[in-house]
Amino acid sequence: MTDTSNAMWGGRFAGGLDQIMEAINASIGFDQRMAAQDIAGSRAHAAMLAATGILTDNDAEAIRKGLLTVLSEIEAGTFEFSTALEDIHMNVESRLTALIGEPAKRLHTGRSRNDQVATDFRLWVRDQYDETEGVLEALMKALVAQADAGADWVMPGFTHLQTAQPVTWGHHMLAYVEMFSRDLSRLRDGRRRMNQSPLGAAALAGTSFPIDRHMTAEALGFDAPCANSLDAVSDRDFALEFLSFASICAMHLSRLAEELVIWSSAQFRFVTLSDRWTTGSSIMPQKKNPDAAELLRAKIGRIFGAQVALTIVMKGLPLTYSKDMQEDKEQVFDAADNLLLALRAMGGMVADMEANRESLRRAAASGFSTATDLADWLVRELGLPFREAHHVTGALVALAEGKGCDLPDLSLEEMQAEHSGITEGVFDVLGVENSVASRMSFGGTAPARVREQVKLWQEALS
Amino acid sequence: MTDTSNAMWGGRFAGGLDQIMEAINASIGFDQRMAAQDIAGSRAHAAMLAATGILTDNDAEAIRKGLLTVLSEIEAGTFEFSTALEDIHMNVESRLTALIGEPAKRLHTGRSRNDQVATDFRLWVRDQYDETEGVLEALMKALVAQADAGADWVMPGFTHLQTAQPVTWGHHMLAYVEMFSRDLSRLRDGRRRMNQSPLGAAALAGTSFPIDRHMTAEALGFDAPCANSLDAVSDRDFALEFLSFASICAMHLSRLAEELVIWSSAQFRFVTLSDRWTTGSSIMPQKKNPDAAELLRAKIGRIFGAQVALTIVMKGLPLTYSKDMQEDKEQVFDAADNLLLALRAMGGMVADMEANRESLRRAAASGFSTATDLADWLVRELGLPFREAHHVTGALVALAEGKGCDLPDLSLEEMQAEHSGITEGVFDVLGVENSVASRMSFGGTAPARVREQVKLWQEALS
Amino acid sequence: MTDTSNAMWGGRFAGGLDQIMEAINASIGFDQRMAAQDIAGSRAHAAMLAATGILTDNDAEAIRKGLLTVLSEIEAGTFEFSTALEDIHMNVESRLTALIGEPAKRLHTGRSRNDQVATDFRLWVRDQYDETEGVLEALMKALVAQADAGADWVMPGFTHLQTAQPVTWGHHMLAYVEMFSRDLSRLRDGRRRMNQSPLGAAALAGTSFPIDRHMTAEALGFDAPCANSLDAVSDRDFALEFLSFASICAMHLSRLAEELVIWSSAQFRFVTLSDRWTTGSSIMPQKKNPDAAELLRAKIGRIFGAQVALTIVMKGLPLTYSKDMQEDKEQVFDAADNLLLALRAMGGMVADMEANRESLRRAAASGFSTATDLADWLVRELGLPFREAHHVTGALVALAEGKGCDLPDLSLEEMQAEHSGITEGVFDVLGVENSVASRMSFGGTAPARVREQVKLWQEALS
Amino acid sequence: MTDTSNAMWGGRFAGGLDQIMEAINASIGFDQRMAAQDIAGSRAHAAMLAATGILTDNDAEAIRKGLLTVLSEIEAGTFEFSTALEDIHMNVESRLTALIGEPAKRLHTGRSRNDQVATDFRLWVRDQYDETEGVLEALMKALVAQADAGADWVMPGFTHLQTAQPVTWGHHMLAYVEMFSRDLSRLRDGRRRMNQSPLGAAALAGTSFPIDRHMTAEALGFDAPCANSLDAVSDRDFALEFLSFASICAMHLSRLAEELVIWSSAQFRFVTLSDRWTTGSSIMPQKKNPDAAELLRAKIGRIFGAQVALTIVMKGLPLTYSKDMQEDKEQVFDAADNLLLALRAMGGMVADMEANRESLRRAAASGFSTATDLADWLVRELGLPFREAHHVTGALVALAEGKGCDLPDLSLEEMQAEHSGITEGVFDVLGVENSVASRMSFGGTAPARVREQVKLWQEALS
Repeated sequence: MTDTSNAMWGGRFAGGLDQIMEAINASIGFDQRMAAQDIAGSRAHAAMLAATGILTDNDAEAIRKGLLTVLSEIEAGTFEFSTALEDIHMNVESRLTALIGEPAKRLHTGRSRNDQVATDFRLWVRDQYDETEGVLEALMKALVAQADAGADWVMPGFTHLQTAQPVTWGHHMLAYVEMFSRDLSRLRDGRRRMNQSPLGAAALAGTSFPIDRHMTAEALGFDAPCANSLDAVSDRDFALEFLSFASICAMHLSRLAEELVIWSSAQFRFVTLSDRWTTGSSIMPQKKNPDAAELLRAKIGRIFGAQVALTIVMKGLPLTYSKDMQEDKEQVFDAADNLLLALRAMGGMVADMEANRESLRRAAASGFSTATDLADWLVRELGLPFREAHHVTGALVALAEGKGCDLPDLSLEEMQAEHSGITEGVFDVLGVENSVASRMSFGGTAPARVREQVKLWQEALS
Repeated sequence: MTDTSNAMWGGRFAGGLDQIMEAINASIGFDQRMAAQDIAGSRAHAAMLAATGILTDNDAEAIRKGLLTVLSEIEAGTFEFSTALEDIHMNVESRLTALIGEPAKRLHTGRSRNDQVATDFRLWVRDQYDETEGVLEALMKALVAQADAGADWVMPGFTHLQTAQPVTWGHHMLAYVEMFSRDLSRLRDGRRRMNQSPLGAAALAGTSFPIDRHMTAEALGFDAPCANSLDAVSDRDFALEFLSFASICAMHLSRLAEELVIWSSAQFRFVTLSDRWTTGSSIMPQKKNPDAAELLRAKIGRIFGAQVALTIVMKGLPLTYSKDMQEDKEQVFDAADNLLLALRAMGGMVADMEANRESLRRAAASGFSTATDLADWLVRELGLPFREAHHVTGALVALAEGKGCDLPDLSLEEMQAEHSGITEGVFDVLGVENSVASRMSFGGTAPARVREQVKLWQEALS
Repeated sequence: MTDTSNAMWGGRFAGGLDQIMEAINASIGFDQRMAAQDIAGSRAHAAMLAATGILTDNDAEAIRKGLLTVLSEIEAGTFEFSTALEDIHMNVESRLTALIGEPAKRLHTGRSRNDQVATDFRLWVRDQYDETEGVLEALMKALVAQADAGADWVMPGFTHLQTAQPVTWGHHMLAYVEMFSRDLSRLRDGRRRMNQSPLGAAALAGTSFPIDRHMTAEALGFDAPCANSLDAVSDRDFALEFLSFASICAMHLSRLAEELVIWSSAQFRFVTLSDRWTTGSSIMPQKKNPDAAELLRAKIGRIFGAQVALTIVMKGLPLTYSKDMQEDKEQVFDAADNLLLALRAMGGMVADMEANRESLRRAAASGFSTATDLADWLVRELGLPFREAHHVTGALVALAEGKGCDLPDLSLEEMQAEHSGITEGVFDVLGVENSVASRMSFGGTAPARVREQVKLWQEALS
Repeated sequence: MTDTSNAMWGGRFAGGLDQIMEAINASIGFDQRMAAQDIAGSRAHAAMLAATGILTDNDAEAIRKGLLTVLSEIEAGTFEFSTALEDIHMNVESRLTALIGEPAKRLHTGRSRNDQVATDFRLWVRDQYDETEGVLEALMKALVAQADAGADWVMPGFTHLQTAQPVTWGHHMLAYVEMFSRDLSRLRDGRRRMNQSPLGAAALAGTSFPIDRHMTAEALGFDAPCANSLDAVSDRDFALEFLSFASICAMHLSRLAEELVIWSSAQFRFVTLSDRWTTGSSIMPQKKNPDAAELLRAKIGRIFGAQVALTIVMKGLPLTYSKDMQEDKEQVFDAADNLLLALRAMGGMVADMEANRESLRRAAASGFSTATDLADWLVRELGLPFREAHHVTGALVALAEGKGCDLPDLSLEEMQAEHSGITEGVFDVLGVENSVASRMSFGGTAPARVREQVKLWQEALS
């Protein structure tokens, strides 16, 4: 048994840790990602300890300089992380002690690892929110650009993956802009709600030192200190909310990704993905596979898996800190990394992709896609109740299907055989361009409506 | 093969549905819960159709009266739901047709079941948010009342379920108030974000009828109509956000429930639950089991299971509506019901429970709970760096443990043997009342701090 | 407060249950589904109590008759279930007491509700395994029948939803037979592992009555009694294993369902689903939607959601029984029902569906699907290393793509320009029938191989 | 844009990969863990190609030697993995080509990366099953050793964490042996079911080369080749089954871990964990935290999260291989690593822990734990129906509780006041040793029964 973590806790521990225990217990392997946040927190804490007279200015200055040295060592990659020191907090403090001696031992006054890790983790998640915000907006811009270019390109709108009604490419792109805009809104709500400082909650009960938690909160960009010290060190709902946001966003990504996979098939050929986002096969030389889209479709698994993991971890934990909660970080790190990567990849793929206008139009014009227009015409022009118009149209669709043609290919006589009131005018609504142009209701697929929305989004995202 | 759903779709369908298909396809078994919402939506739609001249006033009035009749039949329990009619929309419309004839067939103008179900479901979820809000506040009030009563009752604060430091009962209760207040905040954000009207998005593309979606949105209490018709009928992120809120809230409930179970054990005896929330055993006559707490601990499974289910359902669905999405409602219904039940049960249990002050205090005073106070005293009074103070204290704890006593039971001499600077004054901080009173940092456990927070919450919740 | 459950537990409970508590606590709303199992268990227990002399034969006979009466009342729908009596066990016992008096009170000797519910639930799950087994086999038979009919129908094999190589319809159908056969194997392993009797474990510790647990185990068709009474009443791993089996099976269903949805699209037209498994639209008269396939694709959400729920419920429960475990049944009931329904629906849909041979063949012959055959020919006939053959083929694919034709449409000269050794013989391998016929490796797609496997499965499933 | 993966696929790809795409697409960062399996597969494949005359013996020998060199480079840590080469397969092949030239290019004959990765991954999972088997048995042995030592130590048995009946320490330990034995049984079933070889399924359709899949299957220790090539490269149910096994096992671990945490509390003091598995606090010098137990309690989150992730990934994937499936490995790797670590930690912790016999006995003797014994005595000796005995006992418990004493402390007179038939003999069953000794039913807690089971397990595990 070599020298291990327990050495830190002094005389109460006779034996060291089992090697397996050290492997399962140490978090330094992953929590070193929070080094910058940890040092920022310590700097704010030291400055406050000096301002409140708990530390001398000399000690505080030594700590400040020492922490900057530690940070630069970490950034330079020369810092030696030690598993025996368990976590980022003890690694930093230990190095600080080596660098500046006694003042370092005064730094941990009025705080504990429990509030320290809660602070570090919140700062990390907040940074992630901020970085994700820009990437999400970039994806939305790429979608808006596609919508702008193809505001009047006609494509089939599907329900049940069956041709339903003609819609416009721009309208379809903007549907995803709406979805991602709600993700953005969730992101902002989540960031705001979590932006409170646990620092100074100490182990769990607060401290008897006259610390100023508002000062450290402000220094770290928090809106306020957490109002209850037990809660501050115990809860991880902010991490779960981040994961919820990420999961819902990944769900949206999975839907767009599925469409890109289907649209790239030989049967659909709706889009061409660029070489930058596709790969080949080791055995089938003709293949050009939409790998990026498939990987993005899969990310919901990984990201939501993280949410499941942390939810299970938190279930039924009595207050306050339990070591179970150490499992929070790897899940959030992995989900956050993957979400960023996925959003960036989707942004690039959307920016690069080319819609095959001809394929889209051809598909839109087949499959009786304007049957609803015919039914609506019967209502509007002949005054039929919608349910009756639906039945007349259904019969005409059956007729056309039996003949192997589409609706506009039926003769006026054939139509009148089903309903004598039908006139030549009906053919106006059976063309796909007329169909989409007519859908002028708010939120409808008409190119004019799409252009209005494109303009609004361009302004909102500029 | 009897007459089944497909009969509704007219001549295109030669064969009826398989019985198994009817069983798996029909949603009327559960979506009848949205009858009131469905009828409200239809009423708003009909009024708008009249206002925009698409329907005559006479037809609209007939529809209005007819819908009220249908509603009263449903509320009276005399309505006969039909599986062959698949869902609540067709059941209502079919009955309306029976009641008023032709005008009923004009109601479905400019809308589709796709926007109809999206509207109904949003209205239902919104109602659920509203009902949950009050129940959540009631639970918070019950916790605040406990905090108010026991602002200065001393109990052990735990980390790792090991005695850590003395805290106050009021402080512990308020930790949960903080958690539930964030749930409340999530609830309100979620409600606001989802409060947009899909009505008039029609099947997917909008409509060529000159409908006024802002009018129906306003009539139904929505803030605005959804700005993209494809998005309006395709997404269920609002349901996932509701489930996320519910899951996180249920996670909080599971933690409090776990504490109540542990606190009710013979070994802890921290609280006594009332007979109203406990049950007995069929074989062990002495038992008084904390069943309600256990059931609440378990609800996170059920509620989060619903979130998993819907997330999986939505994964990779191409736009727009797919029948997969029919699985959304039962999950949300069950989660919403269980969350409400759980919050009500927890509110009742918390209101009824009695803290055993003596047990709490006795437990708080054991287990070297004031070791941190001793260490802090060494820092404050003797100027030791915290890390050295930690070591001195650790040695004294080991000494006391070896002697089978607690820290205040050591003699001054024994203490001075470890550090000569220790004086009589140290014994002031080793008492649990002094300990908690000293934790005056913002958010700390001092009774004075707790009373401040109690007052703030009483005002906020009044 | 009316008379409620706690009345059952005698003098120790002064107060009744809160109404909310009764609502959350009672299980009779769902566990009445185990009535037959509960009564079977009680009958076996009573017979054993008589055989071991713990009950008189007269009492046992009265109980036997009484239980049969109760069962017939339940089956006839005349039994009045009472929420105040909490669960199926107390409802049955209470009615038995009303019917036969004092002997009924002796039935609960040497057992408890804890082993009783564990026994009932195992019996229920076992029944479900047995019913599912037949339904799963029926689905496999439907797939084998499709494979038999289309052993040599050529279709495109996909990777990444891109045309990869020609395969046979029969081969594709058999791939799912393999998957479901492993589900069947898991089903049988799970059933065997769980088939042990908890009855007689009593509350948790066994009993001092000289009961014969082997006798009741045998009477109920169990292989043996559980060997540890604490384990017998505490664990629900058998339910989780059932859910795992169900989830993996539902995952397989979701894949086949996705294919059916895609294959039914206007772009693919690979299959035509029958009217019995498709539905129409309330607004688009031309639609014929693959609703059943979509619903089956979604069932993985619901079924796996149940597994998540129960896993979370069981996490971290100390031994032995906790009320949390009451959440086990609804999850398993719902998942089992939905799995059965889904398997039946898939079986019917597969039996009914018609492959569009022409569409399949046309798709198989496009997209350079025989590029691998060309590469393999270069290796086999010209002795090229595979990697070089891959490059030559890639160049020819690029050439054909540029010309807008497929590989067999290139001239020999064009091919020789890329590699001079190519001869007329190459065209033999570029036809899709030759391609599939050549894949004679074990497990390969050659019709001869498919017919071998069809024969094996027909025998195995007969 | 630097030279990237697409360069591998030849002339069809004009552009390289986007950097983000390379980051999200490459698997070499994690699939290098399968290097040994990949090389074993290639060696078996090459030997078979030579045996069937597809490769010359010279080429096969060059490949064999080259692969051994690559393996030794990887094991020595001198191998340079390249992200541009995407995955372990291309990295190995590329290095092999550099080492031996042309023969390396012939290795990929009659196989594809699709069957290669499926083979590698199965071999890896199989290795993991094998390693886990031994570790699981070691944990079971540690539990049996505890059971052997404490076969007659009396402790309270709990239901609802309320004292229920006295049980023996050995019996409690053996309950977990039963649970883990079922995990072991699941492990073996899973390993057997997955032990089939995908190698030679090639990309998806099999191959026209006269390969011998039975030969490679045997060489790699598989029981048989997979019988359907589409299935062989498409399914990952074997990975999901491994995760199911791991999750259920982790659920069992979480329960034992929860007990260790509760038992280590100051209020319970049932066990003392060794220093090797506990840690201290940075601020509270008295703490000795059961970190290992807490971490093990949490592992169910991580492991089950992986199962959720992969289930979601696999949902709805059309056949055959899709890139989504690349997400399978990291999930399984992480779950497998964590399960092994957790099982080892639990084995060590159980071996080290010391039961506090006095605390256990004292707790067992309180809380009216022998109330059931009293009720059973009334049935057995006085012939009361159990339900009446239950009521009499309940009244006596209430009496004792009111007096603040336990059941054996009541006088005979007090007892007779409740039921006149009670005699001195009743006191024999109120002692905890007598109580446990009396529970001689099969599977009961009597020390004699426990010793029988201990013996059986010692033999089974030897």
